[in-house]
Amino acid sequence: MEQNSKAVFADRLASLRARTAGQGLDGFLVPRADEYLGEYVPPSAERLSWLTGFSGSAGMAVVLNDHAAVMSDGRYALQMRQQLDPALYEGVVCPPATVAQWMTAHMKEGTVGYDPRLHTTEGIRALEKDLKPAGILLKPVDANPVDAVWRDRPPPPASIVEHFPEAVAGRSAAAKRLEIAARISEDGGYAALINAPDSIAWMLNIRGSDVPHNPFALSTLIVRADGGIDWFIDRARVPLEIVSRLGNPVRIVSPQALHESLKTVAEEAVKAQKPLLLDDSSTAVWFRMTLEQSGASVVHQPDPCVLPRACKTPEEQTAIRDVHVRDGVAMAKFLKWLDEEAIKGNLTEQGVNDALAGFRAQDKDCRDSSFDTIAGWAGNGAVVHYRATSETDSRIVPPGLLLVDSGAQYATGTTDITRTVAVGEPTPEMKENFTRVLKGHIAIAALKFPAGLTGRQIDVLARRSLWDAGLDYAHGTGHGVGCYLSVHERGIGISPRSEQEFRPGMLISNEPGYYKEGAYGIRIENLILVREDGIINDGAGRKRYVFETVTLAPVDKRLIVALMLDRAEVDWLNAYHRRVFETIGPFLESDEKLWLQKACMAI
Amino acid sequence: MEQNSKAVFADRLASLRARTAGQGLDGFLVPRADEYLGEYVPPSAERLSWLTGFSGSAGMAVVLNDHAAVMSDGRYALQMRQQLDPALYEGVVCPPATVAQWMTAHMKEGTVGYDPRLHTTEGIRALEKDLKPAGILLKPVDANPVDAVWRDRPPPPASIVEHFPEAVAGRSAAAKRLEIAARISEDGGYAALINAPDSIAWMLNIRGSDVPHNPFALSTLIVRADGGIDWFIDRARVPLEIVSRLGNPVRIVSPQALHESLKTVAEEAVKAQKPLLLDDSSTAVWFRMTLEQSGASVVHQPDPCVLPRACKTPEEQTAIRDVHVRDGVAMAKFLKWLDEEAIKGNLTEQGVNDALAGFRAQDKDCRDSSFDTIAGWAGNGAVVHYRATSETDSRIVPPGLLLVDSGAQYATGTTDITRTVAVGEPTPEMKENFTRVLKGHIAIAALKFPAGLTGRQIDVLARRSLWDAGLDYAHGTGHGVGCYLSVHERGIGISPRSEQEFRPGMLISNEPGYYKEGAYGIRIENLILVREDGIINDGAGRKRYVFETVTLAPVDKRLIVALMLDRAEVDWLNAYHRRVFETIGPFLESDEKLWLQKACMAI
Repeated sequence: MEQNSKAVFADRLASLRARTAGQGLDGFLVPRADEYLGEYVPPSAERLSWLTGFSGSAGMAVVLNDHAAVMSDGRYALQMRQQLDPALYEGVVCPPATVAQWMTAHMKEGTVGYDPRLHTTEGIRALEKDLKPAGILLKPVDANPVDAVWRDRPPPPASIVEHFPEAVAGRSAAAKRLEIAARISEDGGYAALINAPDSIAWMLNIRGSDVPHNPFALSTLIVRADGGIDWFIDRARVPLEIVSRLGNPVRIVSPQALHESLKTVAEEAVKAQKPLLLDDSSTAVWFRMTLEQSGASVVHQPDPCVLPRACKTPEEQTAIRDVHVRDGVAMAKFLKWLDEEAIKGNLTEQGVNDALAGFRAQDKDCRDSSFDTIAGWAGNGAVVHYRATSETDSRIVPPGLLLVDSGAQYATGTTDITRTVAVGEPTPEMKENFTRVLKGHIAIAALKFPAGLTGRQIDVLARRSLWDAGLDYAHGTGHGVGCYLSVHERGIGISPRSEQEFRPGMLISNEPGYYKEGAYGIRIENLILVREDGIINDGAGRKRYVFETVTLAPVDKRLIVALMLDRAEVDWLNAYHRRVFETIGPFLESDEKLWLQKACMAI
Repeated sequence: MEQNSKAVFADRLASLRARTAGQGLDGFLVPRADEYLGEYVPPSAERLSWLTGFSGSAGMAVVLNDHAAVMSDGRYALQMRQQLDPALYEGVVCPPATVAQWMTAHMKEGTVGYDPRLHTTEGIRALEKDLKPAGILLKPVDANPVDAVWRDRPPPPASIVEHFPEAVAGRSAAAKRLEIAARISEDGGYAALINAPDSIAWMLNIRGSDVPHNPFALSTLIVRADGGIDWFIDRARVPLEIVSRLGNPVRIVSPQALHESLKTVAEEAVKAQKPLLLDDSSTAVWFRMTLEQSGASVVHQPDPCVLPRACKTPEEQTAIRDVHVRDGVAMAKFLKWLDEEAIKGNLTEQGVNDALAGFRAQDKDCRDSSFDTIAGWAGNGAVVHYRATSETDSRIVPPGLLLVDSGAQYATGTTDITRTVAVGEPTPEMKENFTRVLKGHIAIAALKFPAGLTGRQIDVLARRSLWDAGLDYAHGTGHGVGCYLSVHERGIGISPRSEQEFRPGMLISNEPGYYKEGAYGIRIENLILVREDGIINDGAGRKRYVFETVTLAPVDKRLIVALMLDRAEVDWLNAYHRRVFETIGPFLESDEKLWLQKACMAI
């Protein structure tokens, strides 16, 4: 870190401290978050990075009078050391540490401020509970002191909203609006506040480009049980054609009027003697406070869009299959190129990222990657959320394993795929562990199961072969995926924590892995769609579901120990590879086609 | 049904109705239950059978002024038709029907009485909730009107209590008492009321013989957080040697003083400003009412004995392994005999039961069966809780499948085993389905898994192969088993509902099955012990557990389609059979040994 930037961050810290002291506070919390509490924030909300220099995608600064720290998780331990000035900030890895532990160790009783627009109700409640015994109070403050001292703060994003075609969505915005309204009515609510941009995008059949990789518009929405909507977004961002499509029931309201409008809806709810609903796990506590200050009763209710959005319509499923063919073509070209180039020893991780982006860009409907590509060579592949930076970028020198986790946003769907490829001769250990991961992947992909099962109940199938060898992976097996929306969709998945029942149309990743610290990472990821497939004849006649694998790209056979696979696993792999070749082959040039044919040949 | 017995039951019903009317009630509930709410009740508590003639092991009569019904589950549909006089009682199968549905359909608003000693708090609360909208109130009555009209009611059981050796239990009664007391203290309670006879038997290291198959004494106990116990049992039932072993902290109190003593402990709790703990899911509501009437605060807390009892001590595990060798010897003799006799076509199900009991009785330490043996030939095997009676007893005429589910109470442990054997040539379908069940059985038996998993998370492994064929079984995969105690122990198991984490020493059944109505039943059941086995190297370094199969008897290879098994499954089966032969063989005569050697030969 240069002296120059050291002085900048020292100045910023000092001016923040002066400001908070002036507000009568003994400290202030600066999370890496905006009002929408998503994975990506616009530059105007990068307060943590502006203040401390730490640019990780998760974390929080705690600025006390005499101490300050940045807390983030293990994947950012190194980056905190590199980016933080230790004279200003301690870098704290949580877990094992916790925010409350650090705070109680570094201050006596007192009052620490926070911006209630940047924290969930659940988060604040949990922190308050842990701080209370130490006599530390949390106080919401109206004016964020960081914003007061941040000169040249960028303006908030204001992308123009686009229409998402009903022919792809499979349902009109009106139909979704009325379904959500009916749910609110069933739940006894007067209205629901929805501040999740992906939920709003889904409900209104619109898209935007306010943050990278996530094609939505940052905005807020109130939907009443009668079906009427107040959508808080700058009118200039919404083309007239969309305004007229949405029609009268969707009133476009200036974000400046949000506070007043919340008071109004709170008063309406009081009059109607019904509560207002919001999701305390994902909504900023400011909304609850504001509504309650106007006398409304506020009840936690999971975001009503999450479950209907998770169940893709038949039209969305068709679009999803189509973009996976497009993505499969790009992947085939990329994997062939990688096969030929990597062995020469001149590629770098960032070079791999760029090449993959180039192959995807050949499709005119590819608009963005769906997240920052993870190309992890050797030990970097064992860092689960690795992203090559100019500091870490490694040259690919065989032999070893390269893990590439990437995805794209096409105009009609989202992809997410991980392939692990051998560059040069892999070790027997690598092959054995790759085969165990593959066995787990196939166990999920080939499962036939009765309606009523949850991700918690099937996760074991993906890990069993690794457990046999005393191994495991420290992440979930699968997450929900949007349809030209966020690559991580809440509320569904395959993991010990996922208790949502599977339903037809759900799009989920299937991505077991294994990571050997400092040596290599293995992950095999396809997306799967839940589909009905007959019934279970157990008297109750429950429906039977299967997973349809929609991702189409070869799995590196050089990493498979065929003797470790049983007959059914071999059959699954050969059938999958046959389908990959038959579907993708026709879109390739002859040399690419030959490569794919070989990559897909039966074992 | 004969005219004679019809008149008897009509008389009894009439005298009950006269009695309840005299008590100002519009009806009365007569469950098949005693004060301890277990699976077996003594003759003195067989009110349902005395009143109605229905002798099933579960059910309840609802006697209203103009209507009466007996409700039981599907397995007793036929038996209700056979045993009930339709002029007196409607036989109602629940589910799909419910008690509340029948009641609201057959009476207007009014008051129905129940004996609060014979219903759990949870059961009464659920029923009250469903009856309230119809204006039907439930009223606890002190004097059970059935008892008032039941002449010649047998006296309650009064078996002499035995000591369960500390060398087998592995822990002294004093140590258990203090552990439970410490738990009550941790939970903030003044004392816990324990009315589960198996919990009392475990805690005090005693056994009894008040009901069939369950070696415990029906009694009640209060344990205070200071370690002091009031044990409500007739002093004459407890040998002096046991009294002195238990020592001063265990005060033996006459059951006649129970009511007064509950008042006293309630007053103590009020003085100490601490609540009394009891398990509302398994304790009669009478206890809560009585304690609350004396002003105490009563808090639901799961029975504190359940979890420590479930984790067998190393000494118990040794005893459990030993009794499974004894039981394996009896099973080998029985299976050889069955192999030779069944094919002749002269056996009946009851004959099979008797023969098996005979082989077990050759062991001087075998005291009882652990439940009524289920020997189900052909279609009877598909009736999950089948028990041959003189009416249903079938002759075994080959070809077909015979399912034999049985267990024994040895002086130092309890067994539970199911084998399905082919008599004559099985059909290809039988073999395929048997092999699917076997694959599920092996998937559980061979699993290696990290600490923290629950039965809900692994149940899928037992069913996956059946789901592939659109099949399933409508029962859990495994239940807890006692150590010379109840063959069904609460609180642990393998099923979609079992959310208790596995811990070392737990003894559980592994019993997937398949049932084709009217044709045949398949079940393969062994008992498994949870054992530590290294760690999982995933960074967190969690402990790894395995299941040790303790049951030792051959699986019928004539029913296995070897090509459907993968290498690991074949290896498991061959290793298991080798262990069966090596362990059991030395205890057999030479012809028996030859038979076992063949039955255990590798496939």
